[in-house]
Amino acid sequence: MTGSLVIAGLGPGNDAMITPQVQHALGHATDIVGYIPYVERISARPGLTLHPSDNRVEIDRSRHALEMAAQGKHVVVVSSGDPGMFAMAAAVFEAVEQGAPHWRDLDIQVLPGITAMLAASAACGAPLGHDFCAINLSDNLKPWALIDKRLRLAAEADFAMAFYNPRSKSRPEGFEKALKTLQDTCADSRPIIFARNVSRPDQTINIVPLPKATPDMADMRTIVLLGSSRTRIIERAGAPFVYTPRSVEDE
Amino acid sequence: MTGSLVIAGLGPGNDAMITPQVQHALGHATDIVGYIPYVERISARPGLTLHPSDNRVEIDRSRHALEMAAQGKHVVVVSSGDPGMFAMAAAVFEAVEQGAPHWRDLDIQVLPGITAMLAASAACGAPLGHDFCAINLSDNLKPWALIDKRLRLAAEADFAMAFYNPRSKSRPEGFEKALKTLQDTCADSRPIIFARNVSRPDQTINIVPLPKATPDMADMRTIVLLGSSRTRIIERAGAPFVYTPRSVEDE
Repeated sequence: MTGSLVIAGLGPGNDAMITPQVQHALGHATDIVGYIPYVERISARPGLTLHPSDNRVEIDRSRHALEMAAQGKHVVVVSSGDPGMFAMAAAVFEAVEQGAPHWRDLDIQVLPGITAMLAASAACGAPLGHDFCAINLSDNLKPWALIDKRLRLAAEADFAMAFYNPRSKSRPEGFEKALKTLQDTCADSRPIIFARNVSRPDQTINIVPLPKATPDMADMRTIVLLGSSRTRIIERAGAPFVYTPRSVEDE
Repeated sequence: MTGSLVIAGLGPGNDAMITPQVQHALGHATDIVGYIPYVERISARPGLTLHPSDNRVEIDRSRHALEMAAQGKHVVVVSSGDPGMFAMAAAVFEAVEQGAPHWRDLDIQVLPGITAMLAASAACGAPLGHDFCAINLSDNLKPWALIDKRLRLAAEADFAMAFYNPRSKSRPEGFEKALKTLQDTCADSRPIIFARNVSRPDQTINIVPLPKATPDMADMRTIVLLGSSRTRIIERAGAPFVYTPRSVEDE
């Protein structure tokens, strides 16, 4: 019996954003592995075992998934958004590299998903329409000095920016420091976008000039997008559109 | 009669990566607007008019779509990948900002898609599993000096990188310059990934150490991913896995 391991992206929350490819993998799985709230999105059915686990146990979860696939099960590891962006795919490959040699021969596939920054961008226009970077603001797995350095260099490059995991209860001070660095370095009124529960019925989009942004505007359910120096706001009767033009003129 | 304009992402090529949300919009459209090869992906049906147009006419195409929506049609502008990343969404909003004031009141929605860099990343592992940037290497709409500056700063930030539009027949020399800058600046053997026709039946993935990369490895159907200094390769019997670890230790 040959098992398989699929690492699949469920998108940001709206089931209409789950690709048919991922739905097909979920429909053929014997075992679903993932962080509790993501596994909760999967419907129970006969023949399917759900294995929800807590946050911050990504390597243990990966090993468990690999062990089951090696035993012949059809395992799907679920991530929110895209599994390759600050999510489970890197954790699974870390476990593969450090684990049993025969794990390398398993049938392992990554199926992409709609990542939160692109859903948030779509919800307010096209703020990521020109060159940009994506930074995970959690310092659980890297030193804050590296995050700070990246923020400064990204501002110097005039990238638009997308920030994942801006703030959690256990790290209330990080986003305050990041905002301070960005406000000092950018020194203009480019828009910053706080997209909470993006694509869900209770989605909120809050667009403010960078100098007016405060740390409490983000929480762990928020993705934050920052425009470049050229990002534009189109005012209108409803919520404004925000977009970054495709072109930069010669200076 | 109230029209609408949807700017939708078709994903990188495999129809199983088109979200149900986008399929629904395509199913309710009266008019489809887009670059010829993307409109060719849409099946004809009674009541649907297809409006394919050539490359480099993005603003004209956007105005046409906005005019039809203003006339009460249900228009879908299609992009490959995600419409908000180096694609049609920014062009449409540029046309809105510069166009007739009543265009601002139109029902305009952006529906995200699977962007090529995430499909390419999934196809070889998780090279974008840590902080990264996305740069459009075409200098049609921006000066080369800005691209070069961004490449250098991105290398200094130790971002993984995704490059869109690396090379075309009309711009054969740009990617050669970009590679030279990256080889000089990174000065190590991190992997660079050439993913051609990603997600299609004729997909090819070519992974080489950065110093061995040559300009002819990319064409206009290729997306290029460059690892960070920490990106790992897992050798095995089949194609290797490439991933960027989630963590960076304190130094």
